[in-house]
Amino acid sequence: MKKLAAGIDIGGTNTAFGLVDREGNMYAEAVVPTTDFPDLDDYIQELYITIEKMLKTAGPDVELAGVGIGAPNANYYNGTIENAANLMWKGVIPIVERMKRFYPQLPVIVTNDANAATIGEMIYGGARGMKDFIVVTLGTGVGSGFVSGGRLIYGHDSFAGELGHTIVKAHGRQCGCGRKGCLETYASATGIKRTVYKLVADEIAPSSFRDVPFSKMTAEMVTKAALEGDPLAIQAFEYTGEMLGLAIANAVAITSPEAVFLFGGLAKAGKYIFEPTKRHMEANLLYNYQNKVKLLPSAIDDKNAAILGASALVWESLGEV
Amino acid sequence: MKKLAAGIDIGGTNTAFGLVDREGNMYAEAVVPTTDFPDLDDYIQELYITIEKMLKTAGPDVELAGVGIGAPNANYYNGTIENAANLMWKGVIPIVERMKRFYPQLPVIVTNDANAATIGEMIYGGARGMKDFIVVTLGTGVGSGFVSGGRLIYGHDSFAGELGHTIVKAHGRQCGCGRKGCLETYASATGIKRTVYKLVADEIAPSSFRDVPFSKMTAEMVTKAALEGDPLAIQAFEYTGEMLGLAIANAVAITSPEAVFLFGGLAKAGKYIFEPTKRHMEANLLYNYQNKVKLLPSAIDDKNAAILGASALVWESLGEV
Amino acid sequence: MKKLAAGIDIGGTNTAFGLVDREGNMYAEAVVPTTDFPDLDDYIQELYITIEKMLKTAGPDVELAGVGIGAPNANYYNGTIENAANLMWKGVIPIVERMKRFYPQLPVIVTNDANAATIGEMIYGGARGMKDFIVVTLGTGVGSGFVSGGRLIYGHDSFAGELGHTIVKAHGRQCGCGRKGCLETYASATGIKRTVYKLVADEIAPSSFRDVPFSKMTAEMVTKAALEGDPLAIQAFEYTGEMLGLAIANAVAITSPEAVFLFGGLAKAGKYIFEPTKRHMEANLLYNYQNKVKLLPSAIDDKNAAILGASALVWESLGEV
Amino acid sequence: MKKLAAGIDIGGTNTAFGLVDREGNMYAEAVVPTTDFPDLDDYIQELYITIEKMLKTAGPDVELAGVGIGAPNANYYNGTIENAANLMWKGVIPIVERMKRFYPQLPVIVTNDANAATIGEMIYGGARGMKDFIVVTLGTGVGSGFVSGGRLIYGHDSFAGELGHTIVKAHGRQCGCGRKGCLETYASATGIKRTVYKLVADEIAPSSFRDVPFSKMTAEMVTKAALEGDPLAIQAFEYTGEMLGLAIANAVAITSPEAVFLFGGLAKAGKYIFEPTKRHMEANLLYNYQNKVKLLPSAIDDKNAAILGASALVWESLGEV
Repeated sequence: MKKLAAGIDIGGTNTAFGLVDREGNMYAEAVVPTTDFPDLDDYIQELYITIEKMLKTAGPDVELAGVGIGAPNANYYNGTIENAANLMWKGVIPIVERMKRFYPQLPVIVTNDANAATIGEMIYGGARGMKDFIVVTLGTGVGSGFVSGGRLIYGHDSFAGELGHTIVKAHGRQCGCGRKGCLETYASATGIKRTVYKLVADEIAPSSFRDVPFSKMTAEMVTKAALEGDPLAIQAFEYTGEMLGLAIANAVAITSPEAVFLFGGLAKAGKYIFEPTKRHMEANLLYNYQNKVKLLPSAIDDKNAAILGASALVWESLGEV
Repeated sequence: MKKLAAGIDIGGTNTAFGLVDREGNMYAEAVVPTTDFPDLDDYIQELYITIEKMLKTAGPDVELAGVGIGAPNANYYNGTIENAANLMWKGVIPIVERMKRFYPQLPVIVTNDANAATIGEMIYGGARGMKDFIVVTLGTGVGSGFVSGGRLIYGHDSFAGELGHTIVKAHGRQCGCGRKGCLETYASATGIKRTVYKLVADEIAPSSFRDVPFSKMTAEMVTKAALEGDPLAIQAFEYTGEMLGLAIANAVAITSPEAVFLFGGLAKAGKYIFEPTKRHMEANLLYNYQNKVKLLPSAIDDKNAAILGASALVWESLGEV
Repeated sequence: MKKLAAGIDIGGTNTAFGLVDREGNMYAEAVVPTTDFPDLDDYIQELYITIEKMLKTAGPDVELAGVGIGAPNANYYNGTIENAANLMWKGVIPIVERMKRFYPQLPVIVTNDANAATIGEMIYGGARGMKDFIVVTLGTGVGSGFVSGGRLIYGHDSFAGELGHTIVKAHGRQCGCGRKGCLETYASATGIKRTVYKLVADEIAPSSFRDVPFSKMTAEMVTKAALEGDPLAIQAFEYTGEMLGLAIANAVAITSPEAVFLFGGLAKAGKYIFEPTKRHMEANLLYNYQNKVKLLPSAIDDKNAAILGASALVWESLGEV
Repeated sequence: MKKLAAGIDIGGTNTAFGLVDREGNMYAEAVVPTTDFPDLDDYIQELYITIEKMLKTAGPDVELAGVGIGAPNANYYNGTIENAANLMWKGVIPIVERMKRFYPQLPVIVTNDANAATIGEMIYGGARGMKDFIVVTLGTGVGSGFVSGGRLIYGHDSFAGELGHTIVKAHGRQCGCGRKGCLETYASATGIKRTVYKLVADEIAPSSFRDVPFSKMTAEMVTKAALEGDPLAIQAFEYTGEMLGLAIANAVAITSPEAVFLFGGLAKAGKYIFEPTKRHMEANLLYNYQNKVKLLPSAIDDKNAAILGASALVWESLGEV
């Protein structure tokens, strides 16, 4: 019997499912519109039904090993989703307890997206065999997961790992969280757009971005412009690397990881983001960490990353790491 | 016989003329395309011909008192225009000597635009009767003229009065002059656009400017947006006033003027520019200057300001001040 | 039989010993001059001899549970002391392996001082029962230990936990480590002296410190002066708290601890250090951490802290936590 | 008949007198304790008596050309000393009018010390023949005098020329004037002491100043230490030059002088102050001022400078320049 873990990625619009084996091979997939289920009971039942359907699809010789769920505002300890702004169901949702009614013998785990990505990296990706590493997700915001001694750092309340909300510049940019100078305001997809605008203000070099309004700009455009030699785009990556490199160096001084993985949109910019980030990371590292910490692209950063990450929670909970 | 001064404003595209009496009344006007005269001799002759035509237009009982010329890169002492990037004639142009051939008995004076505006303010405008004042022109760039003891400060080489190129922020914005942090990069029409972009980068408040590319933005749009309550536009004026107020306060500590006049595009923004500039000027003034220096809009800031300023050079040279 | 752990604190000048029970009671103590033993073999033997002497002193019904050692530059994983500048023996010292020859059946552990203090806090002190907390030692330098999920974070190379060398101010004060802006340059005993001098430079308020040369100033004098109302001393604690509070807030975002303990000289300044540090920590915390993290004085911060910390390593290794 | 000008330097402790010819030769000197004359009438009479005594001493063929007075808080236009904190006589002292009672036919002029030093430089010193220059006095505070077109810039209220209170660093050091970041807090004798303390805080390089309390330090000690290679002393001059060079560059952009003279204690440090000031001045100058403005030591900076400066006011008022 082939053991498969169900990975569920709960988003405000869609819920994506996959059945994944210990090596990260996908045996079945499904998508359900989250918004079709305003009633939580209906939604939970749909999760169960979809898993069962996928098991049938996957064939006769498979067996469910457990259910892993990635969701916004997830509390790993309590197995709950708490006051998620993007979901319809308000308050605290005891998602693990509800799923357990269907699978009382199996592990059911919930955690947030960045943590799921981190476990995914450890189970299937570039961090296989590592016991101390960091995953930084550079998307609309900046998320992160820290693994120390082979275990994810959850903290006393399950909300550890907010590298995106460490302050890299006192009195810096206004963050959506209400404070100023968070890494997220510099090193996210939105952050690099803000940096391009800062450079339009500070510099007089010609740039295609002088013709682009903020609302139409994307991080991909910045990568493309860098590729074409736009001086402001190249400088924007330099500045992003300066901020990200500093934040990572400070994180390294706390958990001393073997490697740091960059995941998500901005990480796709390749050398444009890795080169300055690496350089500024090294420049800000204490001597005994220098030239030791690998800065790597995530090895599972594809369209199924969220499902894979969620499914990995099952293997990790089974100690099969 | 009514005495009239000829005022000539030499620009890269057009040359504008006026005949003006001691009170600032215009008796005749003319415009000639500068670019029609690639040969300097032809151009000088055209200046003469145009002045003579205007004198005829102005009537029988008028008499020319002298010729005042406002031009870029003018050297007051030498009566020359030196290496002006926007004009066709290269090198050093001895414009005063050449005009003197036509009017050997009359005063012929050349100076730069900001100085001409300053003399205009003194002869016809809000500085009448003042012996110590400053005029700051807030246009595409920032120019200035300083009057001390009733005389314009020309300095030993005729190039004094560059408030726009005093440095208000060390390592600040890149200026077209090659240095960083010049007042001009903050307090000009371009400067406030740069500030709006800086604020789009620093802040998350909604703003109409998130939809406007830099190349399409104008200083007038910032004023209009401020009027409509756009938070970034209001903040942009606040920041402009912070930089301009500091630069003016430092200038006051040097020449202790009775008043500072703001002239040009940004000065049209009224309270939006005057209120924060005044507040920051006072906050940065040494106690014995506080609450003494008037911050005023120019009284001759209209479409004929350049011609009026140039003509005023004549009355000033005749000592009729 | 009463089980006792030997705690050994290896310093450049002296080596201090204690026999400690599970509750932190001291049954015997000893001190040996480190410098008396230039030969490492002699030194190791002396460690053994001293432990055995103490066991006799402690009485007939005691039994050694293991040996815990706190030492500079200790590598926990390898059981070594590596290139410690303050010790006579050069290179890598395999201290655990050598002690194991005397106690092959017992746990022998070595780690650095800050980690030992952290384990001490967990076993005997204010962190009993906590699984997620941080200890920050504010001495000549700034050390730290992070406990996550009940285990100390050692990192992949045993050198994790250098909060003192996270950079809190880009291009800030020169640190002995060769970089600039490390927390240690602000929040250590030397750091607050530097801050007093910075304030003498920045401010004109009267202060007793205008009569004190840097080489004669101590952190205790700053506390005393604050108590007497010296404005610069009070401001120095405010600034120290600003820097320390920021660094702690950033660390909280990574490990989400239940509490942060301050230990060492500066921590003795009581409200002068705790009040501003707490205030700035809260101001820099992401909202979901605010008003949750306790900032506490260490409960074992006395003259025997180093021995206690070292002995605690034994209980921790035995899983008796 | 040799014409001689009386120069009087009024200080809080002593009043110094001299009789000086047009070339700056001293024919007689005297000193009177200012504090001996709490009654203003007595003091004025003593000024007269002392001048007359000196005239007798100077010989039979001399004639008084006028009286020049340097005094704190002097108002040149009104001929008054206004609310000088260091003098016994409170309120507004009409010193010119009172002296005129004794010398109704002669010029009597009062101005402040920095202006007197500036006129002295023009009449007897390095600025002979110059029409546009600046004198900066680097003493306990920073004073300055600006000459434009051969005339001192007094401003509309006689209080122009406060370069020491232009702000060179926003939110910088607290100044005695109540504001922050004035040049005086960086480039005066006290300023460089403050800079040494700042460097003790920022740097870890060894320095003799780590053993010197602020209250015992002097600017001369900094010069001496620089001479001996003390790295912090050399860095202190570098930083002083950075601030002074910036302030001078900004002043040059306003009055475009031929030369800037440094006078007073710090100016005695020779290359230590001139080299970095010159370098930073050039780096901050607009291109059309670069490599044109001379930075020179005052040529009359000796013990009689104040008397000479005061006497020079007479020659300047007589138009004998």
